[in-house]
Amino acid sequence: MNLPSPYLLFLGDTADASDAKTAFGLRDWAPERVVAEWRAPGGKVTLGLPALSPAEARAKGARALVIGVAPVGGAIAPAWIPCLLEALEAGLDLVSGMHTPLADAPGLAAAAERLGRRLIDVRRPPATSPVATGLRRRGMRLLTVGADCALGKKYTALALARAFKARGVDADFRATGQTGIMIAGGGVPIDAVVADFVAGAAEQLSPDAEHDHWDVIEGQGSLFHPAYAGVSLGLLHGSQPDVVVVCHEAGRMRMSGYPAFRTPTAEEVAELTLRLARRTNPAVRCGGLSLNTSKLSEPEARELLAERSAQTGLPCADPIRGGPEFERLVDACLDR
Amino acid sequence: MNLPSPYLLFLGDTADASDAKTAFGLRDWAPERVVAEWRAPGGKVTLGLPALSPAEARAKGARALVIGVAPVGGAIAPAWIPCLLEALEAGLDLVSGMHTPLADAPGLAAAAERLGRRLIDVRRPPATSPVATGLRRRGMRLLTVGADCALGKKYTALALARAFKARGVDADFRATGQTGIMIAGGGVPIDAVVADFVAGAAEQLSPDAEHDHWDVIEGQGSLFHPAYAGVSLGLLHGSQPDVVVVCHEAGRMRMSGYPAFRTPTAEEVAELTLRLARRTNPAVRCGGLSLNTSKLSEPEARELLAERSAQTGLPCADPIRGGPEFERLVDACLDR
Repeated sequence: MNLPSPYLLFLGDTADASDAKTAFGLRDWAPERVVAEWRAPGGKVTLGLPALSPAEARAKGARALVIGVAPVGGAIAPAWIPCLLEALEAGLDLVSGMHTPLADAPGLAAAAERLGRRLIDVRRPPATSPVATGLRRRGMRLLTVGADCALGKKYTALALARAFKARGVDADFRATGQTGIMIAGGGVPIDAVVADFVAGAAEQLSPDAEHDHWDVIEGQGSLFHPAYAGVSLGLLHGSQPDVVVVCHEAGRMRMSGYPAFRTPTAEEVAELTLRLARRTNPAVRCGGLSLNTSKLSEPEARELLAERSAQTGLPCADPIRGGPEFERLVDACLDR
Repeated sequence: MNLPSPYLLFLGDTADASDAKTAFGLRDWAPERVVAEWRAPGGKVTLGLPALSPAEARAKGARALVIGVAPVGGAIAPAWIPCLLEALEAGLDLVSGMHTPLADAPGLAAAAERLGRRLIDVRRPPATSPVATGLRRRGMRLLTVGADCALGKKYTALALARAFKARGVDADFRATGQTGIMIAGGGVPIDAVVADFVAGAAEQLSPDAEHDHWDVIEGQGSLFHPAYAGVSLGLLHGSQPDVVVVCHEAGRMRMSGYPAFRTPTAEEVAELTLRLARRTNPAVRCGGLSLNTSKLSEPEARELLAERSAQTGLPCADPIRGGPEFERLVDACLDR
């Protein structure tokens, strides 16, 4: 999946910045793909970017409007439809990560057809994926793995890919979820792939490469998740990582949405991940821990990172905070 | 998915009995669903059942023609089309486990529409499956798990379900693959489900039941398979088995189609399966081993079964051979 860019980021009519995580993620991690922001009437959220209409954005080179908000329910709001039609009329394709396909929203399919524009649903997987071969590919691969969903696997992969590049390492971020795909401009929504082909889709996502090239692959779910562990295992086997980085969140005691399930420790995640990963790459190792400390103060966070590093004997960093801990994690991943 | 039955078993125009495994499986495991067999011109394989035309079978109560052959490639042969049209005209629905959907074969969709008949592709999963809840259901569950694909997980589950019933235990065979679905008259083709919903589909397949009811669930793939392990893990988590039975084949040293991969031992399969299964059912235990000894002589087979039972301390049987070893396996599964 390759997306047309740069983007005009659409913020809908929401007043709640937490609905606009996708737009903030694109602003922070793919600034080179973003031209401007745009709100529907009544919208209150801003990314601090120039606000341009679709026609103005098109004149500045934008090729697609990206829906950068995801209200509860994941549906396209009726109030957005005139905006989306205006974008199509202005010559922009539409890119959406919503559950509802764009073509199901009234009028969009007909307008896109008439204007020769594309409606791109990034949740929709490639029409066909191969069965995994299990064959080794050249090049280096890092996969972020997690104790649970939604605790920093995507941000950790983005931060590591950026740090690798900053050190002159040839690296690509490989996206497996909708926001990541918009940031990368391509990828595979791995949890939407038919089960038999998950490992094969993961193999395709990080193809044969130069021996010193790194693919930094966005993990999904958790091997300990009662609903999604199978997705995580297929992605792990197909990715054949040389290095895994274990992601956790300080204070996450229970699996999100599954209060009957204890969250595993980072040590448990590392041990099970390495054991299962060896099936397709016997040389896999753990580069370190990525700890989401967003609920802690700065001194608390630094103290916890030092404590967990001492306990595990591994670098332990919060990529969002950066600092020397993160540099040590990058060193360990690159084995320098 | 619920299939119309009883069936007329269609054997195509093949001369090779090994192409007709589905038909033999239906004859052996679901005789109450089978009325007769039927060949296309040139076909040479027989199941030893009465040979009836679609009209004759319909008169004897048949409600569907089942394609019971699967030639290499998995496509519907042009030579079968007149036969399939004749079946529709005679008032039978069509049931297929082929890769190609029935509606893609020339003329079938129009004829089915005109005659009000159904074209049922058992490889196609339910349109929607839920995300797994991880919540425990009442009733007992047994899942067959394997060292590899295609070594006896389906037959083991069928044999155990039959043996449970013979002992007066209320039991259902729960099918997860196309042949199993035809045998059971329903089920979910689990490897065709979108990855995020595999565990949820498995939860739905074996719903809440009476406390002394057993679901005997057909396993898929292997936790050690480089392409399909994710399917196996999702099925394991969603099934929440109380008992697993480990299936292996004597002499299977390499994974089928993956010669770079060693086949795990039954002990390795049992250990990893129990460890991962505990996430959704901490009380899970291994009932014993099911060993496919079809390539051994009878004395060799009995010797190997005794040897493996002594080594593992678990009942070890070949369900196809039966005998006292199999009765001990059934005892152990039921914990009697």
